[in-house]
Formats: sequence, structure tokens, C-alpha cells
Amino acid sequence: MNETITLIKGHRSIRKYKDTPIPDEHLKEILLSGQAASTSSNIQAYSVIAIKDPEKKRKLAELSGNQQQIVESPVLLVWLADVRKIQNAIRQHEDVELEQNVELFLLGTIDATLAAQNAAIAAESLGYGIVYIGGIRNNPQEVTELLELPPLVYPVFGLCVGIPDQEPDLRPRLPLAAVYHEEVYSEAGLADEIAAYDAITKHYYATRKGGGRGGDQETVWSREMLRRFNSGRNRGHLRDYLSGQGFKLK
Amino acid sequence: MNETITLIKGHRSIRKYKDTPIPDEHLKEILLSGQAASTSSNIQAYSVIAIKDPEKKRKLAELSGNQQQIVESPVLLVWLADVRKIQNAIRQHEDVELEQNVELFLLGTIDATLAAQNAAIAAESLGYGIVYIGGIRNNPQEVTELLELPPLVYPVFGLCVGIPDQEPDLRPRLPLAAVYHEEVYSEAGLADEIAAYDAITKHYYATRKGGGRGGDQETVWSREMLRRFNSGRNRGHLRDYLSGQGFKLK
Repeated sequence: MNETITLIKGHRSIRKYKDTPIPDEHLKEILLSGQAASTSSNIQAYSVIAIKDPEKKRKLAELSGNQQQIVESPVLLVWLADVRKIQNAIRQHEDVELEQNVELFLLGTIDATLAAQNAAIAAESLGYGIVYIGGIRNNPQEVTELLELPPLVYPVFGLCVGIPDQEPDLRPRLPLAAVYHEEVYSEAGLADEIAAYDAITKHYYATRKGGGRGGDQETVWSREMLRRFNSGRNRGHLRDYLSGQGFKLK
Repeated sequence: MNETITLIKGHRSIRKYKDTPIPDEHLKEILLSGQAASTSSNIQAYSVIAIKDPEKKRKLAELSGNQQQIVESPVLLVWLADVRKIQNAIRQHEDVELEQNVELFLLGTIDATLAAQNAAIAAESLGYGIVYIGGIRNNPQEVTELLELPPLVYPVFGLCVGIPDQEPDLRPRLPLAAVYHEEVYSEAGLADEIAAYDAITKHYYATRKGGGRGGDQETVWSREMLRRFNSGRNRGHLRDYLSGQGFKLK
């Protein structure tokens, strides 16, 4: 179709990296690409921390559920919802406190995510591989202390960036019909679409290389979902953590 | 740097569109690009509704704060956090109910946002312009009824897509140093960076064409933030709405 769409559709998460640093000019282009993303009313309510220090990466890998790719990747970018910056800007004019609610929490979260995805695509366009690390929310309080995050800032996810040292298969997605609707939401056909996807993922899990669960003969997507959400990895601590950071979900 | 990064860094939101429909094969490429985005543990907890019906677009424009660009754009994509799909998949195997908490809410929100931003870039790569519509959260209950959204689904934002009928200036962003940190979060220098950005945005707001507030001589970014968050547009209804949709922010 075109170079950009080919790149986007060729995405796979990379979990093994070569021991090669990222030149500063590449990192800068990646970050400037992140900044070019849409942002609600131009509030730019996010920040990003680049972690290169091996010891810090080792600790973050441990805190994120022993994710070795963090240690291997030359740079881990930690994307932060950052409402504090807006509070600082406003305080230059008036002593007004931002009203903390779900909407403000969403504004920061969405801004951080839009910027991160731009950065991810820019990195891939330069030949790097990436993987998102939701596990950064496993132990958010410890991450907050390690990265010295002030109130009104929280880590949404990490993003490993580096030269790929693996070529994993493309992971098939749900049939388009299972995510796409016209004019109104409709569940007609969804059971069939999930069944079709289960058949495709059965083959994928049984044969894939370069990832966990390769060679598993029984796994299908819908059963994976059951396993994933029965695993106890529900991060039930998040609300209390966010509250401690000053985010009120009211 | 390369074609993709040039495209990304050239982004501006488009609020005037030509009266030209989007061919189905382009829309499909845009949606497939969305599907190629990263998704937490492959849960794909999002959906998207394409709205082309003029009457429905008119209503959504009204519900989103009289945003005329929704009426003008040939397609409005409404991106939904969709946890219901996962619940459906799991129920095929066991009668387990997903534990509703902040984390699950985040998983759906982040998945929808990553997919939307991929779709936005793909659309721009095909020559379309886009603008995000956070105003879809102004009246979420009415939007939910209009789009027939079931429980465990909520609209994160809209995305207008169409052939641009304007060429707005590039909107300058905060200095990179104001969003970028190394190893730890630091506010050193932030006040100076905001002051520098205020000076840049003063010129931008005074001279820009093709957007609101053009010709305003007094506006600077930090004061805009004060105005924005003093405007009462704080969407304080969101928590109750989400609760009604079955999302528990606990």
C-alpha cells in the first residue's frame, strides 16, 4: 500500500536485542516523533524517562515480573501520565488546583499512549524493535521511588527499544469483523469470528518460533484469555497506588 | 530522516474536510493498521465503529460540543474500550466473571488508544487528515444509546478522517526537555522551558491560520491551560457513567 502502512502492518514485539546502543540522534528523532502526536487541547500531559543504566534496568526488569528484555534492550522508555506539569503551568498564573477525577486521569493516560505509539512507529521505521511493558504497573510504588516520580505522575507502561536479535512470526489478530462495526455496535457473528480466530491461533501457538508457548498444541486465543485473567495478575493494587500519587478516580 | 518520521512530525489536526468519501479499500487499510498495534497479552480489548450516516454524525457533533468537523468528515471512527469481548471469549470455556478494576479499565483504554493512533498514522500516510474528538466523552450516556453500546464497552474518543480542506500551521510543542528525563524524573529547568514555550506559543496564537483563536495577541500556553481547566469542562460525570457501563474503578 505504502511504506508507512507496510511498516505498521509488519509490527511484531521484539523480546531479544543486540548489545548495540542507540545513537543520540536516533533517540531524539524517536522522542520528537512522540511529541508530534495529537494531545487533548494541546495539554501534553505526559513525560518520558529514558533508562540506560544497567543496574536500574535490572531492578525494573525484576519489578516488572522478571522481564529479561528490559535488561537486554539498550534503552527502556518509561511513559508517564503527567498532570503535574499542567498544575505547574497553571500555578504560574493563579493558585488554582486541578480537579482530580477520572477524566483528568484519562487525559494523561491517553496523551502518554498516543505519544508512545508515535515513538514506537518512529523507532521501527529506523530499524529498531520494540515491546511494551505493562508489567511496569506490577509494582508501581517501587517504580515510583526508583524513578523519583512526584505526585500527579504515574507510569503507564515501559517501551523497550533496540536492534532486534530475533525474527518472531507475525502474530495473527482477530478477524477485522470482530473489532469493526458500522453505525452501531453489534455482536452478530462474534462467536463464529472468535471460533475462526481460535483455529488460526491454535496453529500459531503450535508452530511459532521466537516467543513463549511455542509448540503448545492445545492453546487457542479464547482459552488464553481465560488463563490470562485467571492468573491472579489483576493488579488490584493500582487504585490505592494512584490515590497515593494524587489521582482521584471519582 | 525517513518517510514515516517525516509524516509523523508533519502531523496537524484537520478540522475542515472536502466532501469526498473514503474508498472502502482505504478504510480497510486504516483499520487493519489499527489492528496491527501492540495489545496487552494479545487481548485486543477494543472495538471501533465507523459512522457515515449524516444524521447520526449531526447528532454526535451536537453531543460532542457542536464540533462541526464531525459533520464535515466523511467518516467518524469511534474507538471503544471493549472488555466485553474478552468476557464473551472466556465464557465459552468457563462461567468466570472478569474482575472489574482500574487495571482492566486501563487495559481497554490503552488498547483502544494504541490501535487508534496506528489508524491515524495510516490514514495520514494515505493523504487523509484526522482529528481526535475527546468531546465524545461530553455526553457518554447519550452516545452509548445512539451507538447501542452494551455493558463493558465505553467510547474513549472519536477520530474524524477525510480529505483536508485546510492547511493549518504546525502547532509547536513544548521543548523536548520539558517532557524528557534521563534515569529519574526531574523538574530542574521546567519553569524556564515553560517560559520559552509561552513565548513561542504567543507568536503562534497571534499569527496562526486555520484554527480557533487565530489573531489572539495575549494567549500563551500556560495561560491557555488555566483557561482550559477553569472552563468547567471537567467531565465530572464520567465515573458514574462508567460505573453504569459496568466498569468499576476500584
